[in-house]
Amino acid sequence: MRVLGVDPGLTRCGLGVVEGSTGRPLSAVAVDVVRTAAGTDLGARLVAIGAELDAWIDSYQPDAVAVERVFSQHNVRTVMGTAQVSGLAIHAAARRGIPVALHTPSEVKAAVTGSGRADKVQVTTMVVRLLRLAEQPSTPDAADALALAMCCIWRGGAFDRLASAAQASRSGGRM
Amino acid sequence: MRVLGVDPGLTRCGLGVVEGSTGRPLSAVAVDVVRTAAGTDLGARLVAIGAELDAWIDSYQPDAVAVERVFSQHNVRTVMGTAQVSGLAIHAAARRGIPVALHTPSEVKAAVTGSGRADKVQVTTMVVRLLRLAEQPSTPDAADALALAMCCIWRGGAFDRLASAAQASRSGGRM
Repeated sequence: MRVLGVDPGLTRCGLGVVEGSTGRPLSAVAVDVVRTAAGTDLGARLVAIGAELDAWIDSYQPDAVAVERVFSQHNVRTVMGTAQVSGLAIHAAARRGIPVALHTPSEVKAAVTGSGRADKVQVTTMVVRLLRLAEQPSTPDAADALALAMCCIWRGGAFDRLASAAQASRSGGRM
Repeated sequence: MRVLGVDPGLTRCGLGVVEGSTGRPLSAVAVDVVRTAAGTDLGARLVAIGAELDAWIDSYQPDAVAVERVFSQHNVRTVMGTAQVSGLAIHAAARRGIPVALHTPSEVKAAVTGSGRADKVQVTTMVVRLLRLAEQPSTPDAADALALAMCCIWRGGAFDRLASAAQASRSGGRM
């Protein structure tokens, strides 16, 4: 199973592709951060990020896309941009028929560190260790994207159920 | 000038096209509400709304798209979906090179009723009167979409400056 993890953000959007299955070592396929400059036109920033999301999905052909579930109680100044980017990521996957998994930050932290309250250093440390990376990802957003993808693979059981439910609602819905 | 107004929302997304220029009567070209069922798959909902946004932009070829600026202090339960849909609308316009104007709810209310604190009934009443509509739009979301488009046309001066700034930042940015 190959999963693209997306840590949505306007200024830095983390992207990470992980391959593997539950009970076997996972491997990192690609990781990067898409950056757009604060203060520049919102439309241009969303277009730049949307183009990268499309390019990553088309090159890496993930079986699923895992996106961080955004909560409004986060930093009020940035949460709208984060939600807008998460909408683009979910849309980019769903219009290709790729299942989308939404994971909360605490689910992701718990999956890779054992604690839902782990800090960024712990998450990065465990991502490097579990994926046997030669070096740390460039930013916490990149590490978070890999952690999201790992969480999605490890929670496969729950994810399969979600995907089936989504499939059922799609065939029964107004699509 | 022809403007597509978008009142973003997951359950109801208002779309309205208005044509005209400052100082002359405006006319409504089209208005509708895109609905997706609460409780169904988020990806499928965003795909359905994205397809309608694309279809409206391609059929009506607006000179600008006006989107309601979403604030996080709105209803916490729905604001994330609203922000995700606004991201899709801004992206759909910007990737076609169509300028995007963001207006706050109070700017829109002030533009059509004279008061930034007008209620939904006043907004709908004034939209019907100013556009000389034969009947009320089906929902407040539809009326809001028309009001957004009207606000964008009437604030043309400010909008032109915004569009030029956006243009400048696009050509200077990392697009």
